[in-house]
Amino acid sequence: MQVAWIGLGLMGQPMARNLLRAGHSLTVWNRTAARTQALVAEGAWAAATPAAAAAEAEVVFTCVSDPPALQEVLWGPQGVLNGLRAGTVLVDCSTVSPELARRVAEACAARGAEFLEAPVTGGTWGAERGELTFLLAGSEPTIARVQPLLDALGRQFFQCGPHGAAQTVKLALNLLYALQVEGLAEALALVRAAGLPDERLLAPLAVSMGRSPLLEVKAPLMASDHYPPSFPLRLMHKDLGLALDLANRLGVALPATAVARELYSAVRASLAEDADYAAIARFWPRRPTPDTAD
Amino acid sequence: MQVAWIGLGLMGQPMARNLLRAGHSLTVWNRTAARTQALVAEGAWAAATPAAAAAEAEVVFTCVSDPPALQEVLWGPQGVLNGLRAGTVLVDCSTVSPELARRVAEACAARGAEFLEAPVTGGTWGAERGELTFLLAGSEPTIARVQPLLDALGRQFFQCGPHGAAQTVKLALNLLYALQVEGLAEALALVRAAGLPDERLLAPLAVSMGRSPLLEVKAPLMASDHYPPSFPLRLMHKDLGLALDLANRLGVALPATAVARELYSAVRASLAEDADYAAIARFWPRRPTPDTAD
Amino acid sequence: MQVAWIGLGLMGQPMARNLLRAGHSLTVWNRTAARTQALVAEGAWAAATPAAAAAEAEVVFTCVSDPPALQEVLWGPQGVLNGLRAGTVLVDCSTVSPELARRVAEACAARGAEFLEAPVTGGTWGAERGELTFLLAGSEPTIARVQPLLDALGRQFFQCGPHGAAQTVKLALNLLYALQVEGLAEALALVRAAGLPDERLLAPLAVSMGRSPLLEVKAPLMASDHYPPSFPLRLMHKDLGLALDLANRLGVALPATAVARELYSAVRASLAEDADYAAIARFWPRRPTPDTAD
Amino acid sequence: MQVAWIGLGLMGQPMARNLLRAGHSLTVWNRTAARTQALVAEGAWAAATPAAAAAEAEVVFTCVSDPPALQEVLWGPQGVLNGLRAGTVLVDCSTVSPELARRVAEACAARGAEFLEAPVTGGTWGAERGELTFLLAGSEPTIARVQPLLDALGRQFFQCGPHGAAQTVKLALNLLYALQVEGLAEALALVRAAGLPDERLLAPLAVSMGRSPLLEVKAPLMASDHYPPSFPLRLMHKDLGLALDLANRLGVALPATAVARELYSAVRASLAEDADYAAIARFWPRRPTPDTAD
Repeated sequence: MQVAWIGLGLMGQPMARNLLRAGHSLTVWNRTAARTQALVAEGAWAAATPAAAAAEAEVVFTCVSDPPALQEVLWGPQGVLNGLRAGTVLVDCSTVSPELARRVAEACAARGAEFLEAPVTGGTWGAERGELTFLLAGSEPTIARVQPLLDALGRQFFQCGPHGAAQTVKLALNLLYALQVEGLAEALALVRAAGLPDERLLAPLAVSMGRSPLLEVKAPLMASDHYPPSFPLRLMHKDLGLALDLANRLGVALPATAVARELYSAVRASLAEDADYAAIARFWPRRPTPDTAD
Repeated sequence: MQVAWIGLGLMGQPMARNLLRAGHSLTVWNRTAARTQALVAEGAWAAATPAAAAAEAEVVFTCVSDPPALQEVLWGPQGVLNGLRAGTVLVDCSTVSPELARRVAEACAARGAEFLEAPVTGGTWGAERGELTFLLAGSEPTIARVQPLLDALGRQFFQCGPHGAAQTVKLALNLLYALQVEGLAEALALVRAAGLPDERLLAPLAVSMGRSPLLEVKAPLMASDHYPPSFPLRLMHKDLGLALDLANRLGVALPATAVARELYSAVRASLAEDADYAAIARFWPRRPTPDTAD
Repeated sequence: MQVAWIGLGLMGQPMARNLLRAGHSLTVWNRTAARTQALVAEGAWAAATPAAAAAEAEVVFTCVSDPPALQEVLWGPQGVLNGLRAGTVLVDCSTVSPELARRVAEACAARGAEFLEAPVTGGTWGAERGELTFLLAGSEPTIARVQPLLDALGRQFFQCGPHGAAQTVKLALNLLYALQVEGLAEALALVRAAGLPDERLLAPLAVSMGRSPLLEVKAPLMASDHYPPSFPLRLMHKDLGLALDLANRLGVALPATAVARELYSAVRASLAEDADYAAIARFWPRRPTPDTAD
Repeated sequence: MQVAWIGLGLMGQPMARNLLRAGHSLTVWNRTAARTQALVAEGAWAAATPAAAAAEAEVVFTCVSDPPALQEVLWGPQGVLNGLRAGTVLVDCSTVSPELARRVAEACAARGAEFLEAPVTGGTWGAERGELTFLLAGSEPTIARVQPLLDALGRQFFQCGPHGAAQTVKLALNLLYALQVEGLAEALALVRAAGLPDERLLAPLAVSMGRSPLLEVKAPLMASDHYPPSFPLRLMHKDLGLALDLANRLGVALPATAVARELYSAVRASLAEDADYAAIARFWPRRPTPDTAD
């Protein structure tokens, strides 16, 4: 299939590469043009604008970091919507507000194009291996049309409901992740303050009811105090803001999420650009522990 | 071995039964005497007071619900410490403050007895199957002496450090559990407010990085809004209070834990006595959802 | 002076009336046209659109409830910016984000118009009496030009700094108000839960260091559980959202504000449209107290 | 009257001095004996133990910093209760839990003594000038007996109800203070993060509905970042803990108080022993502002 891919960030680049490797013809665009070079070297075409990328495609993917970025690549002067032809499918893998997702759906419908809302979960690890989980909101025929492409990107696919529903579920999952990691960070802060080495908590946690693949990945980052990019804290912070905006619009209070977002906010400024959100552990300054040789 | 067991609650009863079934001679005591009948029918002796139960025993177990209850069964007029002989081992499986644990250790030492701090995790399910996880603080020889008994009760054993350390780790684990379940409850509140059925969140969660045995157990309780006793909310609420007291004494801020504790507090009054802490989902009043047939 | 007034809500209507009474020629516009009738009966002209109102004016005031409403009356198809002539002064009394205020300033500058950012504090009471406090961000000459109008509306005027600064100070003041009222509500919830009548708290509060004109106004509302419109909770909720958005953009954590916003969110849905924000006391369901005859 | 005074801290010392100056015969005791010297130089007698001080007195005042200190001076080996004669009045000016106050009342009744629960508000400033506000719980005749003494210490007296009620009201007032000061600190953090000088907020605040004697005192401390002892943060932190314990026992959730307590906890360790609680502003690290010359 003739595919356009807009947005080659931590997630977009490995996802686009998987489409290329699956044999699809790929045109790419990225705000920072230099990031297109690797894929061009592997056989992709680079378009000058999102509109140009979209003009030739049967399916256009967008995968950008936040709502303003999505608005820019869609509605901007050279945006996708200027190039989108009737009959094309727009698949958005970004995490944005349900409200924005519904506006994108309307804009597509107005042009005779189809829209598939398709935020993903699974991190850079899942993106590289083609093992992402997709949350989908769109019509069955639309999903059927792009399923061969999705199969190159992910393993699990969930139909969430009408447009907006996939983003709602995505935001809910992310706040659950954020609080799970926040819980680990607070627990660790407590045992550290008591002068115990991290392992005293992490060893029983690893066999406890509370163990999860997420905590297995994040705990070593906290223990080593190194946070290589996986799911950047700045994006988790953004997603918590979107979740709280949605919750407040719906009139539902999320007090623990609200507090967690403030803690993420407190550490964000002092972090490297793409540091993983396990860096929330930095909220608590480290003190020397008596038996760190342990 | 000649064993005394003080406290036959949701955890204590199945644990004591496992010792009996493993062939040990067991004397039991419980504040509400009627709860001793089932074990007596299975071969245990009932003692009139904690002191009397302790007087004959090589090993005394205590397993009660909170610090005041432990103080009562130990230091009360007919308490264990009045009957404890030199050379006996006191094993406390309750969850209390590290400070109280250290005071118990001192009281035992003053009597020539040994103390093993031994809070457990694994719930009533683990207690019944003898598959609990023990967090231990005590000397190696003490542990070695009671290991045959512990083997009838649990599968995993972690040495946490000096007296107080096992309770510290236990409280840290419990706050981690409380925030994980709080995260699920907030996520569910959000998807419900958006008019989506629970399954929209729970299905992708079950295959996500955030899945855990804990959430697998708690999610169906929230979905059905039934909370049969497993780990009572009132005890989780108590443990969060102990964790925050400890944190505040150590000068470490736990903002999300503090908020979660208030939410547990808000729902506690309206619950059945032993309702499981997944009932935190009740903080958000349910609204009818459009496709509950789903 | 020839003045246009856009927005005749709880604040705008009494403010516009004060200009009329001070002898100025007034053209008004409101989204719900019926609300213009009272002022027209007192001598104002009603314009068909914001653009038409602005076209004739030397000074244009806008006073609407939130950022989307301001964007609509300014940039909408018949918005103020379509009618604004070079040399006109636009004075915005709404509470919006500093970012939006700066965008309005730029849009005015691009048309050769001047912009005065002028959020107010003092409530409907101050609006009616012409005793508002103005927070100002704009050039000295601009302020000098409109000072005769401002004198009919308020008593105190504070220059806050460059464009955006007045809104920043306004949001900071409002979060301070929100937490002060939240503090009263939590204190009251505690004495009520202890079975004491409200007066036990309110009497000593009235002579304490913590007394304030704000609490003097809000306490009786909470005590009587009636919340006639003064500063609607839905607007305070909105302002807390703006304050948190600003804080998160600036990388500063406001944990208590974040929690307070969630509580306001929790009660909002069940309130009358314009109920005062003292209704946060409704977060805690009332219980009968033993000596309510008191 | 023959008066004993136990506890010569920041509050106790100036209060005891006012009794001495009013012509009463005073015996004092303090844990750190050196602190009795100043009052002895002014005519007081120093007792060797609380019991000895109480043995001679018609009225015994206690004024210590927290519940364990009160338990020690009352029930300790040489404690007041060992010396308290029938007919004596015990007046406790400490802030403790309502539960402890009720236990003290019972202990007095058992000895034929009377108990007046009498926590105060007004700070060191009010203590020095004899202008404190007293919250009282005790019988009318008891109050009448000690009123001549109270008149030397305070100006305002509020009967709060049965034993426990005065402490409940005190804790409620203190949480209200803590959140009011927290609100100022968060508001200041926001304007500082936006690069504005403190005065931009403090000037309009001083004429706003939200102004209070409390904020007038605390704002300059935050602006100068100096926190001379007035109401120590460690005591406010302790009182918030008591308020939350009470609330949780009563089943009432106080989410903003809970978060504020954690912030106080976070700054406590790095402060001087008696630093005022306005030091909560230290939670937010200061950044250089562009126009600090302002």
